[in-house]
Amino acid sequence: MAGVTECVFCRIIGRELPAKVVSSSPAAVAFLDVAPLAPGHLLVVPREHARHLHELPAAGLSGLAAELPKLAAALLQVTGADGYNLLQNNGAAAGQVVEHVHFHMIPRRPGDGLGFRWPAKQYRAGESEEILERFKLALAG
Amino acid sequence: MAGVTECVFCRIIGRELPAKVVSSSPAAVAFLDVAPLAPGHLLVVPREHARHLHELPAAGLSGLAAELPKLAAALLQVTGADGYNLLQNNGAAAGQVVEHVHFHMIPRRPGDGLGFRWPAKQYRAGESEEILERFKLALAG
Repeated sequence: MAGVTECVFCRIIGRELPAKVVSSSPAAVAFLDVAPLAPGHLLVVPREHARHLHELPAAGLSGLAAELPKLAAALLQVTGADGYNLLQNNGAAAGQVVEHVHFHMIPRRPGDGLGFRWPAKQYRAGESEEILERFKLALAG
Repeated sequence: MAGVTECVFCRIIGRELPAKVVSSSPAAVAFLDVAPLAPGHLLVVPREHARHLHELPAAGLSGLAAELPKLAAALLQVTGADGYNLLQNNGAAAGQVVEHVHFHMIPRRPGDGLGFRWPAKQYRAGESEEILERFKLALAG
């Protein structure tokens, strides 16, 4: 098991590793991604170590979320982008590389070739009703 | 200007339009996307109408965020997925279609062909330092 001190993002938060830190608060640290999809691509990282979103205490996540609107407004101002994506990957199957929860904030422009692949599907008859019932059971448990 | 009542997500929140609602709270409503990227694909929507994340009051966003860990845990349980993405698109350039802030929670499996396109770049010398200073100015203003 990797200790917290081996986590690259914990080491950035603890100032053991350098980063271009845009903002720092008791809840979260935001810094420039060193390998950006576009200039100004930010990472917003909770101070508390958790690998996945579903393992993060709700309170820490609330604090981080409260900072997102002002960071997004700054990103638009700094980059002049037309839009942005907020993206958070959980698990290798979802593209997660660093195993500490992090939110990508990615500046977007028309024709930039970025974006999520979107082969939307349709539910077969009865399928969505069945999934809905399973969600209700899972959330009640 | 589109009024709030013309907003599809406001109408779902107000129960004027049907949806497969998984959870409902004072902060947010979560329901199945009718055109899912994978079965169990959720939309998590703040009750308060705002078009973009940077226009949403921090308090409402905090309340929504506090619900994400339990929704994500339920999504993993219901779908048996290996991971998931949380994705929120702002502006047409970023893929936003419905103009009411919404978070996609997308179940992921290895080889599913989904995911964000990732042509990572490198900053030229001095570029990231300059962007960092502009962020600091924007956030101080």
